Amino acid sequence: MIEPAVLTETLSHDLAALAPGGQVLTDDASLAEYSHDDAEWAPFEAPLAVVLATSTTEVAAIVKYARKRGIRIVPRGSGTGLSGGANGVRNCIVVSLELMREVVEINVDERYAVAQAGVINDALREAAAAVGLWYPPDPASSAISTIGGNAATNAGGICCVKYGVTRDYVLGLTVVLADGETVHLGRRTAKGVTGYDLTGLMVGSEGTLGIITEVTVKLLPLAGRVEQGIIGYFPSLPAAGAAVAAVSSEGIVPAALELIDRTCLRAVDDWLQLGLPADAHVLLLAKVDEPGAAGRELADRVAAIFTAAGGVDVEQAADSDDVARLFLARRMAYPSLERLGPVLTEDVCVPRSAVPEMLSRIQASAARHDVVIANIAHAGDGNLHPLIIAPEGDLDAKARAKAAFDEIVDDCRALGGTVTGEHGVGLLKLPGAAVELEPRVIGMHQAVKDALHPDGLFNPGKAFPQTAKA
Amino acid sequence: MIEPAVLTETLSHDLAALAPGGQVLTDDASLAEYSHDDAEWAPFEAPLAVVLATSTTEVAAIVKYARKRGIRIVPRGSGTGLSGGANGVRNCIVVSLELMREVVEINVDERYAVAQAGVINDALREAAAAVGLWYPPDPASSAISTIGGNAATNAGGICCVKYGVTRDYVLGLTVVLADGETVHLGRRTAKGVTGYDLTGLMVGSEGTLGIITEVTVKLLPLAGRVEQGIIGYFPSLPAAGAAVAAVSSEGIVPAALELIDRTCLRAVDDWLQLGLPADAHVLLLAKVDEPGAAGRELADRVAAIFTAAGGVDVEQAADSDDVARLFLARRMAYPSLERLGPVLTEDVCVPRSAVPEMLSRIQASAARHDVVIANIAHAGDGNLHPLIIAPEGDLDAKARAKAAFDEIVDDCRALGGTVTGEHGVGLLKLPGAAVELEPRVIGMHQAVKDALHPDGLFNPGKAFPQTAKA
Repeated sequence: MIEPAVLTETLSHDLAALAPGGQVLTDDASLAEYSHDDAEWAPFEAPLAVVLATSTTEVAAIVKYARKRGIRIVPRGSGTGLSGGANGVRNCIVVSLELMREVVEINVDERYAVAQAGVINDALREAAAAVGLWYPPDPASSAISTIGGNAATNAGGICCVKYGVTRDYVLGLTVVLADGETVHLGRRTAKGVTGYDLTGLMVGSEGTLGIITEVTVKLLPLAGRVEQGIIGYFPSLPAAGAAVAAVSSEGIVPAALELIDRTCLRAVDDWLQLGLPADAHVLLLAKVDEPGAAGRELADRVAAIFTAAGGVDVEQAADSDDVARLFLARRMAYPSLERLGPVLTEDVCVPRSAVPEMLSRIQASAARHDVVIANIAHAGDGNLHPLIIAPEGDLDAKARAKAAFDEIVDDCRALGGTVTGEHGVGLLKLPGAAVELEPRVIGMHQAVKDALHPDGLFNPGKAFPQTAKA
Repeated sequence: MIEPAVLTETLSHDLAALAPGGQVLTDDASLAEYSHDDAEWAPFEAPLAVVLATSTTEVAAIVKYARKRGIRIVPRGSGTGLSGGANGVRNCIVVSLELMREVVEINVDERYAVAQAGVINDALREAAAAVGLWYPPDPASSAISTIGGNAATNAGGICCVKYGVTRDYVLGLTVVLADGETVHLGRRTAKGVTGYDLTGLMVGSEGTLGIITEVTVKLLPLAGRVEQGIIGYFPSLPAAGAAVAAVSSEGIVPAALELIDRTCLRAVDDWLQLGLPADAHVLLLAKVDEPGAAGRELADRVAAIFTAAGGVDVEQAADSDDVARLFLARRMAYPSLERLGPVLTEDVCVPRSAVPEMLSRIQASAARHDVVIANIAHAGDGNLHPLIIAPEGDLDAKARAKAAFDEIVDDCRALGGTVTGEHGVGLLKLPGAAVELEPRVIGMHQAVKDALHPDGLFNPGKAFPQTAKA
């Protein structure tokens, strides 16, 4: 590791010359702001500088410059990551793609879109909708996260249970490699198997193999898509778990199947006074989007399953405003909890059938470590987000929260789960990944990274547990 | 490259000891049979021996043995590949997985199956169907190709237009690496982003990075899936092209949208006497599988689109036997053409909207090079299979066929296509891949291969154009 031999002023001047269309930030407030993503619980350091690049050419120039000087680069979209993947490391420049906001092309006939990395997920969805197309992946951060960050972390979302995750939609990428060269990976045709799936390898690699500057995504037709919502309150976790299992075993693949637990419901209701039932332990929210009568029939079946499993106040909505109203509690869950203190967000994914058991174990962890844990979950996927809350400034509570976090990861593994369903390894899940991945598989990660990126200056120490070479 | 220092007899004896449950073949007939897959047009050499392995342990033992002696390994499923990916190379052992036919587990609750690599695609589909689940990928070879080979080549099929390709269903893999170590990649949960997508990297790597011995695939519910078929004959390629474009632009994603041209129709009818219309230039075959009234309505819309575009004898079928009858010509297309002589199968994939233009160019190539070219196409994906036929033993015709093949690849590239939609690069598409992939991207392939597999003894010279190191 070569230490940077440049002073901040020189650095700032040089970077500004390399990114003439962009911005270079070196003031303390900016360096602090860009020193971490939404995972303050993970370690972070302030960067030497932040560059808001405006083109692939600028990114490439900065990479070449940094490489020559042994300066590390942490790429970043909106910084909404929850695992620390965009947290600053020692001796780094943060290269933010947030100003690269152009939707370059939407091809209606071939149903794909080309977007610069900084395009906001919702903006891409709106641009597609304007021409009758649909970009499904919908992380909870869709209003603020970028398509480049979504690709770098292989972001999930609510509709994944039926429609898959970001990787399932990425057809191609423009990537700046570690030596500053730019490559175009993938294709724009519906199918294609020319060579290794390097596009898929880049997706989810959390900026450790290259900087994604442009993304080509597959789109679906929007025509005829009508969502219907179904919700129900359940008196216990096992009752809700039985409902989730029954939906699956009846061969229904809902377009969403979300769970909110009592702690979360109370936080939402305390803030928004929605009049949610005070005695409800769990809220399940489902969507179906089959067309016409089939969709109505399916919604009725889901409602019947909810009722049969002990659900009460089971309600259906066919109108989109009404569906949005039913899902309001889900949308407001995270902000409602953030009001209570810094939230440490878990992201375990267990077998669907293990969801009730996993939720019970999470409750036990909360009690054992005396922390508040609220749960939202993509129940249809077995992907749980226990939200561990520790009051601001309470270091002891923070330590207890971290202990609960680790215990949840252990329990997830014991139930056959994976330590990160959709948020990525970043820094927070490195210990979990070290348990989940076989040592030789970790060695394969290191070998692939060393092969594509011998200097190791991109986002070092992230995405997988570092090890000796394979 | 170390030459093998072992005689056939010693080799045979040693291999038999390493694969006690399997078979070792060294007789001339077997060596000839296993010297190539279904791509005899590509170069091939007879192997030193063929091992039919029966376990991951046996495969691992053979790899360790071969590595020590510098003997190359060509892995193989049923040998139904169409690009030469399983063709024998100098100084190699063919390791066939065809005897590893156990469906290890089908988990109904979590909707996945674990199958040994040699399980036949249709057998997996039937095993899943027996418990109410569905494995979608349906290559034309589904009755004879293996799930391991499907994964190694990322096989496509007829339903891809709606349901995606093999990679979209592979959750995890057991792989024997080049040093004989065995790794388990991927997961069994619905979602998971722990580390790089090495599973996806192995899928489609054509046995150059490891030998896949076990595959975990995602399954869908079978319940409520009813297919309806729609066919129509068209007087011209542009008319059929307009119908394909209209289906897409109306936002319909059919479960199949296949095209058969006049040459192919004539070959089928000459053989089977189905009474297909003599003056038809193109047959389009579609399926939809939306449930209930929505499905019937959609089938009517597709039929109306066919008619509006000039289609005649437009027919619908809702009964599964009837749908199979409508699709008979599609199923029999390849065998009907093989009766006319060795078939050189193309696999270009162009933008959907370029299908008519591409088909016109293919007709022009056929005329220019005086060869017979019949066309079947996954029209809904833009994935065309021009089938170039040269009479047995006619070396001049074979050379002209090869010239037409190369021209088709050039035309596909000129229209923005990819040189292989679903068959893989193997050997036949190496020149095309060299044009399609940027030099630096080819270098990335080489770097990844060298990193995971420094000896290069697995299937050398396949899957991507070899080059100097990146």
